[in-house]
Amino acid sequence: MSKNLTTRSEDYSKWYNELVVKADLAENSGVRGCMVIKPYGYAIWEKMQAELDRMFKETGHQNAYFPLFVPKSMFEAEEKNAEGFAKECAIVTHYRLKNDPDKPGKLMVDPNAKLEEELIVRPTSEAIIWSTYKGWVQSYRDLPLLINQWANVVRWEMRTRLFLRTAEFLWQEGHTAHATKKEAIAESETMMHIYAEFAENFMAIPVVRGVKTETERFAGAEETYCIEALMQDGKALQAGTSHFLGQNFAKAFDVKFANSEGKQEYVWGTSWGVSTRLMGALVMTHSDDKGLVLPPNLAPIQVVIVPIHKTEEQLEQITNEVTVLVAQLKKLGIAVKYDHRTTQKPGFKFAEWELKGVPVRIAIGPKDLENGTFEIARRDTLTKELVSKEGIASYIQDLLAQIQKELFDKALNYRDSHITEVNSFEEFQTVLNDKGGFVSAHWDGTAATEAQIQELTKATIRCIPLDQAEEAGVCVFTGKPSNKRVLFAKAY
Amino acid sequence: MSKNLTTRSEDYSKWYNELVVKADLAENSGVRGCMVIKPYGYAIWEKMQAELDRMFKETGHQNAYFPLFVPKSMFEAEEKNAEGFAKECAIVTHYRLKNDPDKPGKLMVDPNAKLEEELIVRPTSEAIIWSTYKGWVQSYRDLPLLINQWANVVRWEMRTRLFLRTAEFLWQEGHTAHATKKEAIAESETMMHIYAEFAENFMAIPVVRGVKTETERFAGAEETYCIEALMQDGKALQAGTSHFLGQNFAKAFDVKFANSEGKQEYVWGTSWGVSTRLMGALVMTHSDDKGLVLPPNLAPIQVVIVPIHKTEEQLEQITNEVTVLVAQLKKLGIAVKYDHRTTQKPGFKFAEWELKGVPVRIAIGPKDLENGTFEIARRDTLTKELVSKEGIASYIQDLLAQIQKELFDKALNYRDSHITEVNSFEEFQTVLNDKGGFVSAHWDGTAATEAQIQELTKATIRCIPLDQAEEAGVCVFTGKPSNKRVLFAKAY
Repeated sequence: MSKNLTTRSEDYSKWYNELVVKADLAENSGVRGCMVIKPYGYAIWEKMQAELDRMFKETGHQNAYFPLFVPKSMFEAEEKNAEGFAKECAIVTHYRLKNDPDKPGKLMVDPNAKLEEELIVRPTSEAIIWSTYKGWVQSYRDLPLLINQWANVVRWEMRTRLFLRTAEFLWQEGHTAHATKKEAIAESETMMHIYAEFAENFMAIPVVRGVKTETERFAGAEETYCIEALMQDGKALQAGTSHFLGQNFAKAFDVKFANSEGKQEYVWGTSWGVSTRLMGALVMTHSDDKGLVLPPNLAPIQVVIVPIHKTEEQLEQITNEVTVLVAQLKKLGIAVKYDHRTTQKPGFKFAEWELKGVPVRIAIGPKDLENGTFEIARRDTLTKELVSKEGIASYIQDLLAQIQKELFDKALNYRDSHITEVNSFEEFQTVLNDKGGFVSAHWDGTAATEAQIQELTKATIRCIPLDQAEEAGVCVFTGKPSNKRVLFAKAY
Repeated sequence: MSKNLTTRSEDYSKWYNELVVKADLAENSGVRGCMVIKPYGYAIWEKMQAELDRMFKETGHQNAYFPLFVPKSMFEAEEKNAEGFAKECAIVTHYRLKNDPDKPGKLMVDPNAKLEEELIVRPTSEAIIWSTYKGWVQSYRDLPLLINQWANVVRWEMRTRLFLRTAEFLWQEGHTAHATKKEAIAESETMMHIYAEFAENFMAIPVVRGVKTETERFAGAEETYCIEALMQDGKALQAGTSHFLGQNFAKAFDVKFANSEGKQEYVWGTSWGVSTRLMGALVMTHSDDKGLVLPPNLAPIQVVIVPIHKTEEQLEQITNEVTVLVAQLKKLGIAVKYDHRTTQKPGFKFAEWELKGVPVRIAIGPKDLENGTFEIARRDTLTKELVSKEGIASYIQDLLAQIQKELFDKALNYRDSHITEVNSFEEFQTVLNDKGGFVSAHWDGTAATEAQIQELTKATIRCIPLDQAEEAGVCVFTGKPSNKRVLFAKAY
């Protein structure tokens, strides 16, 4: 079990790949670039979905569902968006198989079943959704449209990694339409803040809130807001984006409304999404060489109880004690599992639940029965303590809240100590290579400089942070004047 | 609004199509055969999902996610299944678009980006899932696998209708693997019963539980269990199926396990699913010429409150009264909406909420304020009554439960009065054409007879009911001996 896990210092990338598979989160499938999300991994994703869905609905959004396919002519209507996604599309060209006359028992594409127009498997749904919104919007009274969809999307990536980059992935995509520019910008910003709160409070992942440079912007957007997280290996990960689309899609799909004076205007749009990529961020923010470390909010099993016994009689006595505790914990809404398998030894169970990141493990043996205690082990700190059974349920409830908070504090501390201000390109390169993390540097604001820095260092501008004060300085690369630092990093 | 709805007696099919669109459930999209599920319709689907998901988990199932695509070679591995779905597949052949040199601003499929092996967009996931199970099962200790997936699937239907038959639809598909035949059969039966309970208790749709004939069986199954519902126009609708797969997929994908004696055996399988088709069944079981009628369990809004006022002051007084009631109803877990729009008159609002099927409408005007009453209207019976405000919240709670029950009873009464026993083919045809519904008849058990009856009458055998007692008789068509009646009907 976990003893076979490559350590992070040996090979971070290998550690990640192994951990995702061994902890039963996901695995590669027989389909190029597509993953299978296993039940344990999917249970974590369901917890993320439930919380995000609650936050979306609380802010007035409704769910809907739009088609998987986008006809080519619709896909190409918004030119920048089409160009941005054209190189990585799965394209449906036929609608029937037939028996292969040359190979008995085999099927072949029926050449007589060619589609008149090719269908693109959605890489994102702006085109299909804005073509629908055209029919939904006539007057300002129909606005805003605040709609979200939970869906699968496909982007034909050449190099894939479980959760981080897969040909098919699961996500939610919000698509809103507004009467004014101001309202659409406010919506984009609101959603960025919702993502940030979700990442920080629910996933215990600290994030920087910022906007993308033009180079890194979503194809078809006027502004892309983002949240950027830092992984343990010093590489950044874009954890969510929210786009102000201006009137680009409204113009491409002719979505107009009569304003309160009866004048026709184009609608203003936004779109925003997070995906199963967040699973990768979760793993690479908290986990360690023994396996997953899950924040209690996301753990499908928050507490596991393992009996330590030699005789059947001991097991029975332990089980009596545990039954009381399980009932108390469930009453507090805590997800608890009593692992009473007799096919496995306690040591095996300990390693298994460590690998799977269960936040709290409780062990109870004959000595504990005598003394009225339980042994409580924290997954995050790997520390143990003996706790009296009096008031233990509320003790555990508090402990889970404490673990949630401490995981965030630990990650925040790491992240904050890995934002380094540099003032020369030499320093830039040294910090990037020796320490990693975010490099905070002045930049002259041009795409040319951004591209050259990327070519030389593989670092990209992750974002222009929103809470960054203005500061006079000179671009680390060209020496031209700059009034604000931006964050560079190598990124997933 | 609803005054424009075609009546059921004028044209049932047109009534259905109009209602689905006008009540904001769904609409056709710009993609052939694919629908857009609108927020109001999707909210109903979410309620179905939540209840089914709860029932699945309560019976030990877990969710997971498998790829959208199935490589052709994997698809064709189980021959019967492949043959059954080959004629209606969406096939991905390319993975990139490029600029069309002949048409500026247009894109074309890049001929250099042809896939080595075509990918089928899943019409159902047995192939991809059993190819995965091969890696998950080694020993009897790994069994059973009890897994469900919520997903979109695509079947290239030529004639489509919103919810009832669409190229893409949403569904859940359970796929389980077992050590014994007995256990797999028990699982298939359990899931049929879960679907039946869901349909009856939650959707208020009575169903017949039965098994399909060989002709109607799922491609690749040894037995298909089903639940069959009857629509208001006398046509049947298959509302859910559960398949005992035998060892067919285990053999096709070489999924073996070591039994407790260490001997290698093939695994036994089941699969089961319900889809957004249930939305169509919902509409066609309960709704009327004024619009949707929703069972309270499925209504996104269970109670709507409409103020009747002439002056601002009256509205303020009404709103004070309503605020108290809304709080009381919410406390009881009732989904309530106060429709205080000033842009629309009460009559317009009444018609709108009737069209959308809100089970209970409450109106309150100046007279009610004086008398301490509310006017309560039931959507299903279109009856009204004045109710004193004392204890009104629990009155409404009881009323919702009563409506739920009465909708089921009404549908059951209709269904039961539309199961007609016939003993000759002449009678068969007369009943089928004049009355519709299920025709209960003896059949000689051959596919040939089944096919001939279908050709002559368009009726198919919907199921061999499970609760049907044996009874000596002769086939209505061939006169050959039969020991059990089966249910024929024209079907959606």
